[in-house]
Parts: sequence; C-alpha cells; structure tokens
Amino acid sequence: MTTEALVEQIFKKRSFLCIGLDTDLEKIPTYLLSEEDPIFEFNKAIIDATHQFAIAYKPNTAFYEAHGKKGWKALNKTIEYLNENYPQLFTIADAKRGDIGNTSSMYAKAFLQEMAFDSVTVAPYMGKDSVEPFLYIRNKHTILLALTSNEGAFDFQTLKTDDTQLYKKVIEVSKTWENSERLMYVVGATKAEYLAEIRKIVPDSFLLVPGVGAQGGSLEEVCKYGMNKNVGLLVNSSRGIIYASESSNFAEIAAAKAEVMQREMSELMKNL
Amino acid sequence: MTTEALVEQIFKKRSFLCIGLDTDLEKIPTYLLSEEDPIFEFNKAIIDATHQFAIAYKPNTAFYEAHGKKGWKALNKTIEYLNENYPQLFTIADAKRGDIGNTSSMYAKAFLQEMAFDSVTVAPYMGKDSVEPFLYIRNKHTILLALTSNEGAFDFQTLKTDDTQLYKKVIEVSKTWENSERLMYVVGATKAEYLAEIRKIVPDSFLLVPGVGAQGGSLEEVCKYGMNKNVGLLVNSSRGIIYASESSNFAEIAAAKAEVMQREMSELMKNL
Repeated sequence: MTTEALVEQIFKKRSFLCIGLDTDLEKIPTYLLSEEDPIFEFNKAIIDATHQFAIAYKPNTAFYEAHGKKGWKALNKTIEYLNENYPQLFTIADAKRGDIGNTSSMYAKAFLQEMAFDSVTVAPYMGKDSVEPFLYIRNKHTILLALTSNEGAFDFQTLKTDDTQLYKKVIEVSKTWENSERLMYVVGATKAEYLAEIRKIVPDSFLLVPGVGAQGGSLEEVCKYGMNKNVGLLVNSSRGIIYASESSNFAEIAAAKAEVMQREMSELMKNL
Repeated sequence: MTTEALVEQIFKKRSFLCIGLDTDLEKIPTYLLSEEDPIFEFNKAIIDATHQFAIAYKPNTAFYEAHGKKGWKALNKTIEYLNENYPQLFTIADAKRGDIGNTSSMYAKAFLQEMAFDSVTVAPYMGKDSVEPFLYIRNKHTILLALTSNEGAFDFQTLKTDDTQLYKKVIEVSKTWENSERLMYVVGATKAEYLAEIRKIVPDSFLLVPGVGAQGGSLEEVCKYGMNKNVGLLVNSSRGIIYASESSNFAEIAAAKAEVMQREMSELMKNL
C-alpha cells in the first residue's frame, strides 16, 4: 500500500486506529475453543465487527508462534482474510525482526511478499545492513523500533551517545539509508512528550504508537506532540479492544470500544 | 542443559564447534527437493554426519519462517530429532527476538519449552523487561546480542554512551538482571580484538561467536582474546560446513570440514 492510500483512508474514516491482534487462547471466549481454528475465528469476528472504525490491524507474531504450526496457520489465514476482504486496510506484522543481511532478506520475503503484509516491525540494534533488505520492496513499509512503550526502553534507548540519545540517533542515522522513505517508527504512547523531539527529526514520517489503553498512554497527549498535517500516527490498541468482553457478544463490545476511540480520533483531527 | 554439562561435552569432544543450520532450499542438493520435507532431510543428514565433531546446533529461524507452515514443521522436526537422538548436544534457536514482557514470555514458552531448545538468541534494544521473561526458565540459556558480526554493528553498537560503548553497556547492565547467570552473549568473530574488552566484563560467560568462515573471522584470534578456562566459546560455522558440497555426498564433505575445525579447536585447547 502506498503512503497516499493510507492517508486517504485515515481522512475518509476519520480514524487512525490500529487494532492489535494479540490473540491468546487463554483470553478469548471459551466457547470458541471448540472451533477447528479458534485463533482465526476470533480474529475474523473482531475484524468484521471493528473494520469500519480502524485503518490498520497488527498481529504480534509471538502470539501465533507460541502455538507452532497451528499458530502459523492461523496467522496466514488472518492475513489472507484481511487482504481478500478488506484490501484497503493497512496490515502490520509485529515481528520485531533484524539479522545479518541474507537473513533479513529471508524475513522480508516471508512477511512482505509471501504473507503480503503491508509492513513489518524491525529492531535497529544490528544497523543498516540488517534493515535495508526490508526497504527494497516497493509499496511496503518497515517500522523501526525507536522508543518503545515498556519500562526497559530506559535501559538503552535513552542513553546519551556522542551527541544525542540513542533512540534519536537511530532515527537520524536510519534517514540516511537507501529507500528510507519506506521507514516508519515505533514510539510508545507512554512517552508522548518525547514525540515533540522526534517530530523535529522526522516531521513527515508515520509513527506507530502502542501503549494507549492497558499500558496507560494518553491519546490526547500523543496527538498534541506527534500529529502532523497527514495525521502521521497509527495509534494501536490491543487488549483494551479485543478483550473488552469474554461473552458471546465480544465482537460487538470490541466494536463499541473501537467506535469510542474512532470518535475521539475524529475530534482530534478536527483542525486538519 | 546445565552449563556444567555443556563444558563437560566440550572437553570430552575437544570441540567448541556450533553448526548453523541455515538451511536454504536454493542451496541444498537438488535431488533432495523431491523428498516430502527436504529441509528436514538435509538437516538430518548433516547432523548424523557431523555430530561427533560439534557440540551445538543452531537453526536460524528466518530460514524456516520463509517457508511458512512447512518451514515451521521442518524446524519442529529438526529440534525433535536432535533432542531424541543426541540429547547431549546444545541447541540454539537463533531467533533474535525481544518484545514487551507478556510478549517475550510467549516467545520464551515457544522456543525454550514447547520446542525445548536449550537456548534462544535475544535482541537487547528493548531492555530488561523484554529479556527477563526468557531468564526465568531453569537450565535454559538466553544469548543476548552484544557485538554482532555484520558491518552494521558499527552503526549503533559501538556508539560511545555516557561512559562506555553501547555493546559494553548492554553486557554490564544485563549482568544486574535477575537470573543473569543464564545469560550468554553474541560476539562476532569478525571483531575478535573486542573480545579482550568483553572478557574484562564477563570473564566466565559463554560467548556465541558467529562469523568464522564465510564472513572472514579467524578462529585463532577468537581464542586468543576470548577463551577462558572452560573454553567459554561456542564458535559457529554455517555456510562453510553445510554448503561445502552440492553433490550426493554433501554430508560426508560437511563432516570432513567439521573435522578440520574440530582438530584446530582441539589444538587450541591444548593448554587448558
């Protein structure tokens, strides 16, 4: 998907909500467990109920890998379902990969071509030659971890390096890489005030912002410091939406939660 | 596997060779492609032929994920084959994972418990709470990326932070984490001279050293700067061994290559 198509969808739906499909067998309604593929059935119900309020879906691959072959199959079915039924939605494989060049190429192929996600999250620690293989693919996006939403972000990401903090250095350096216009960045909502600094370095890039909801980040703060003229934000909520209810009408409740967020987002977009 | 059992095996075999199972359908002998599971058949042949010269096997998960469900099945069969037939061998899931706490727990469960690898490689960028879930599991090991073998290692890992370079900071800080005695570190053979600095911080930890062979690192240099009284090294070779020949006797040729390395290693261990 092109960035233009993503922006168009955001303005059409007046939403920049990304729904995290962190689907956990221990948290989904128990009656689904008798289905042949409970993870996929849960995802399908959530997607069908919430798609009008969201512009992106983000399965975290860990939740699928934890179930081996079956989990991998559920992930495949989920992305196929999204691509076939809702091709206008932006899809993110939250995989946080990164390896030496030839290995990163394998990951890029797996997520962006074979599974045909629009984007994949990548860790920056191994540097340029570990990220560039993801950037070669046209109309796909690589979302680099910059400042994550967890407490451990303060262990290394905010260390002062030569002239600036590591997370800012990561963003600055990555801008010099080939095809860097295909980069987006992960910035946790729990660290909203840092967004002002980040916007000085990448005023136009899209930022994937996890941590609103269960982790405590504020949507209003995120927009105050991080919104640009194209919105430039994909704000993710996972647990707060998909596990809002364990009853048989879980998908309706999830849709109601998503709608509340979409309305807030529409309001926050009113001056654009 | 306990560290003691690993050390015992190293001294018994007089080898600290880890063989990387980066199995690529485009590189294995073409006659294997007619098998139902060519990746597993290749791995099985390599393991059976080389196990007497090696003490560890390291599948890089990217090569398996690139084939989706089928690849995942081949990875499962490979680790099951190793655990059933050669339980004394140390196994490494080279996955380079790392995510927020509840997600890292899913990865830890998948690799260390369900697939029952002895260890998994983890990226440090997200800090303490992203790594600790891997450290909870007794007699398992977490191998943290410190200084990797690729050129991109110089983008961020060697940046000077407050008082020291990032890769050293990662090692120093990780030593303070809970169950840190279950940590090992990745240090590329292409940067052997850095091993002297690393040994000042972690004199006793095991180091997984990729980059000997195809990537150009020297085994002798690695031992000169990195060996301790327990050896303390797992030196990995992937392409140099497993793709030494494309003919039908590829496994014998791989064994011959592994034996050459084992002999060099035995010689380098002579003063221990």
